[in-house]
Amino acid sequence: MTGCPFASRRGFLAGGLAGGLAAGLAGVARAAPQGDVPRDAPPADAAAKGITAASQGPGRQESVPFRGARQAGILTPLQSHTYFAAFDLTTTRQAEVAALLARWTLAAEHMARGEAAQPDSPAPAPDPGADPAIPPRPRPAGDSGEAFGLAPARLSVTFGFGAGLFVRDGQDRYGLASRRPEALVDLPRFNGDQMQEARTGGDLSVQACADDPQVAFHAVRQLARIAGGVAVLRWVQSGFSANFAANDTPRNLMGFKDGTQNPLSRRPEESVGGAVRPATKDAVWVGEDGPAWMRGGSYLVVRRIRVALEHWDATDTEFQEQVMGRHKVSGAPLGGTSEFDPLDLDAVDADGNSVIPDTAHVRLAAAASNGGADMLRRGYSYNDGVNMVAERWPPWRQGLEYDSGLLFICYQRDPRAGFIPVFEQMSRLDMLNQYVTHTGGGLFACPGGAQGNGFIGQGLFEA
Amino acid sequence: MTGCPFASRRGFLAGGLAGGLAAGLAGVARAAPQGDVPRDAPPADAAAKGITAASQGPGRQESVPFRGARQAGILTPLQSHTYFAAFDLTTTRQAEVAALLARWTLAAEHMARGEAAQPDSPAPAPDPGADPAIPPRPRPAGDSGEAFGLAPARLSVTFGFGAGLFVRDGQDRYGLASRRPEALVDLPRFNGDQMQEARTGGDLSVQACADDPQVAFHAVRQLARIAGGVAVLRWVQSGFSANFAANDTPRNLMGFKDGTQNPLSRRPEESVGGAVRPATKDAVWVGEDGPAWMRGGSYLVVRRIRVALEHWDATDTEFQEQVMGRHKVSGAPLGGTSEFDPLDLDAVDADGNSVIPDTAHVRLAAAASNGGADMLRRGYSYNDGVNMVAERWPPWRQGLEYDSGLLFICYQRDPRAGFIPVFEQMSRLDMLNQYVTHTGGGLFACPGGAQGNGFIGQGLFEA
Repeated sequence: MTGCPFASRRGFLAGGLAGGLAAGLAGVARAAPQGDVPRDAPPADAAAKGITAASQGPGRQESVPFRGARQAGILTPLQSHTYFAAFDLTTTRQAEVAALLARWTLAAEHMARGEAAQPDSPAPAPDPGADPAIPPRPRPAGDSGEAFGLAPARLSVTFGFGAGLFVRDGQDRYGLASRRPEALVDLPRFNGDQMQEARTGGDLSVQACADDPQVAFHAVRQLARIAGGVAVLRWVQSGFSANFAANDTPRNLMGFKDGTQNPLSRRPEESVGGAVRPATKDAVWVGEDGPAWMRGGSYLVVRRIRVALEHWDATDTEFQEQVMGRHKVSGAPLGGTSEFDPLDLDAVDADGNSVIPDTAHVRLAAAASNGGADMLRRGYSYNDGVNMVAERWPPWRQGLEYDSGLLFICYQRDPRAGFIPVFEQMSRLDMLNQYVTHTGGGLFACPGGAQGNGFIGQGLFEA
Repeated sequence: MTGCPFASRRGFLAGGLAGGLAAGLAGVARAAPQGDVPRDAPPADAAAKGITAASQGPGRQESVPFRGARQAGILTPLQSHTYFAAFDLTTTRQAEVAALLARWTLAAEHMARGEAAQPDSPAPAPDPGADPAIPPRPRPAGDSGEAFGLAPARLSVTFGFGAGLFVRDGQDRYGLASRRPEALVDLPRFNGDQMQEARTGGDLSVQACADDPQVAFHAVRQLARIAGGVAVLRWVQSGFSANFAANDTPRNLMGFKDGTQNPLSRRPEESVGGAVRPATKDAVWVGEDGPAWMRGGSYLVVRRIRVALEHWDATDTEFQEQVMGRHKVSGAPLGGTSEFDPLDLDAVDADGNSVIPDTAHVRLAAAASNGGADMLRRGYSYNDGVNMVAERWPPWRQGLEYDSGLLFICYQRDPRAGFIPVFEQMSRLDMLNQYVTHTGGGLFACPGGAQGNGFIGQGLFEA
C-alpha cells in the first residue's frame, strides 16, 4: 500500500509544482516546512497559486485549531457545509476504542491545518493487552487525496459519545457503564416522532464542518477509513448554510430568517444583533455538574427534520407568519417592525388574542416559555433530493416530495434542561409540526477538547 | 395567496432595512430601482450589509445574463453547486407546454438577476385554445423566499428537451414528433449500465448552477412550483465542485485532477493551461446540421455515476494511477512530469508495454482514441450519504457504502459523434469500470438561448 507521499496539502502541492512548474516560482522554494505551517499564516505558495484574499471565500484560508480546552465546532462561527456521521463500534475491547480516538485525534488535528489525515504519523503503539495470537492491524492506507490543494476551509471536527459506548442492550461493553454521565439519557420518544432506526443513534459521533463540502466529507471519509475493524459508519447526513452576508441572519429553506434568537450563526461568539447574551456560555458548557472528563464539554442533540416544502410553498405567506410568529420579510416578531425587536409574548390585539399565537413556533421555542431553558443551535439545511410517495386516500395521488429540510444541531450543558423540555412542549403544540417530520438523530456527550498530547475523551478512559 | 411583496432580492432587503434599520444608512436610500440593478454593478446596499469584495466568495455578487444567443450554463465557468432536475409533462396540450416554457423563461431571467422568480410578472395570457368550461389555472404562489438577501451567485438555468416531448410510448403527444432532431436519439444501453428508471430520462431538463447551493435549489423549486398541473419532477440530483483555486484543475472525489483535457473548469471559456483549443466551439454548438430551433444549442448527456469510494480508498495509489493513466499528485500523464504535458499514447517502456495502459481511463477518453470525438464536460461531484448493502456471497458482509460519486454532465454538437461512441468504448474497456456504476441520466436537446422577448425553445413551437 502506497502511503501519502506528502504531509501537507500545501506542501504536497508545492512538491508537485517543484517537480513540474517551479521555474521562476521562487515563492515555492520558500514554503514553510511541511507540517509546520503557522496556523494563521497565508499559504506559503499562495502567490504561486494565484490565490489572493479576494479570490477566496470568507475564511477559506483560515484554519481552526483542533486542540484546545474546548472542542472546535461548537462556538466556531458556522461554516458553510457540514458532513455529520454516527459510527457503531464493532470492537469488543476498550483499548481499541481508546486507540481509535487517539488516531482520530491526530488525523483531525492534521486535517484542521489543511494537511493530509496521517502525515507520517507513527503506527499505533503496540497494545500491551493485545492477544499475541492476533496479528496487529495493518497500517491504514494513505489519504484519499481529494482535499490536496484545498485550503483548510476552517475545518472543525467535533467528536461525541453515544449511550452505546457505555451500555448497549444492557451490556457494559467496555467497562465504562459506571462512567456514563447522568445527563447522557436515552432520549424519550416525542409526539410525532418518525425516527428511522437506520438514521438514529450511534456509539460515536463526528460533526465535520468546513467552508467547502469536499473538505468536510474528506474529513469523515478519512476517519471512517482509519476506523477500519473498530468502528463502522452507522448513518451520515450532509448539510449546508447559504452564503448570506456576515451580518445577515441566514434564511432557511422555509424562507424565514433562522437564528435571530441564537447567538451563533455567522457572527462572533458573543454578539447577536449587536447585543450580548452572557448566559450562553453557562447554557452550553458542562461545569462542575458533570464528570471531570466532560468539563468544558457539551451535549449535542442532532435531529434530521424533513420539511414538507411542497406543502409549505402552497401556504399563504400570512399563515406562514402565524406559524412562525415572525414576519417573513423582516424577521420581526409579529407586532414588531424589525428583526431584533424583543419578543413580546404578552401582547394581545384589540380582541384580546395573542399577537404571537399561542402555538407559534417562536413562542414555544423561546427560553422565556421554557423556564429559561436554553441551547445553542448550529443547524444546517439538508437536501437529499426527492422521495416517491403515494397517498392512501382519495384522490390517491402519487409523486415526488422533496427530501429536504433541517439538520437541527444544538449544544447544551444538560439536555434535561435544554432540548428535552423545550421539544417536549413544541412537539405537542407547535403549528410548525404540520410541516415537519423528525426522521432521525441522536444525543451525544461531547467531551472537552484534546490538550497537550492527549486525545479526545482520554479522561474517560483514565477515570 | 399572498404574492411576493418585493421584486428584487436586494430591493427586498433594502425595503426591510428601510422599515427597521435604515437610520443613518443613507446608502440604502440610494439603492437602484427594484428590478433595474445593472447586472455587473455591486449591490447598492452592499455597504449597508457590510459586504465587501473580500467578504464574498469569487463571483458571488456577479450575475450571468439569462438571455442571449446561447443558453448560459454551458460555457459559463463552473459554479460551485448544481441542482439538476428532470420533469415529466403531465398535460396533453402543446399550448400548455409552450406557456410553461414562457413562464420558466421569465422566472429564470429574473432569478439570474438575483430577483424573485415572479416579480410582478403578469398572469399568463389567456389561451385561445382553452376549453372555456375549464377555469384558468390559479396564479402560482409567490416566491418561497429562501434566496431573499442572497446575491445572484452566478445562477445559470439551462433548459433541455427529452425525447418524450416529441414521442412517448409511440404517441405523438404534442404534434411535435416530426420535429424531433435526428441527433436526439434514444441512448443505447451501454455495457455495465445499471440505470434506475426513477433516475433516468424525463421530458424536460433543468440544470441550475450557482455559487450557492440554496440559490441553485431555489431556482428549481420555483420552476417546479410554477409548473403545477403541466409538469412534475421526475428526478433530481444535486452536486458540488470544491473550492480549488481559479487556476487549479479541481480534484474529484477520487483524489485525481479532473478536467485537465477539458476546456471548462473554472477557467475562462477558451483557455486551458494557457493553451487554446479552438475546436471546442465546433464540438459544442449545433450549426446548420440541426433544425433551426437547435442552432446555437447543444446536446446534454447527464449520468449519475456512483463511485465505490470504499473500494477505491483501499486501492494502492500506484494502481489508481494505472487505472487513470495519470499521476495522482501532479496530474501528469504517466511518463510525464507535469499536468499539461501532452498525452503520449504511443509511448512504450523498455519491455514494449504501453506507458499509459491500453485500458487506462485517460487513453480511452481522449479525443485521439475516438477519431477526434470531443465533448465539453462540466461535471460535479455528488454526495447522497450512504446506502445499506449486503453481499450475497461469503463472507456475506453487510454494511454501508457511500452513495457518492460523479454527476457527469457533457455538452456536444451531436451525441452520435460525442458521448455515445466514446462511452461505448469506455464502457467495455476502461479499468475505471471496476469502481464506477452508472445509475441514472438522460439525453436532452438544449435549444439556443432566449432572445428579445422570446422564450426558450419558442422556435420549436413555431416551426
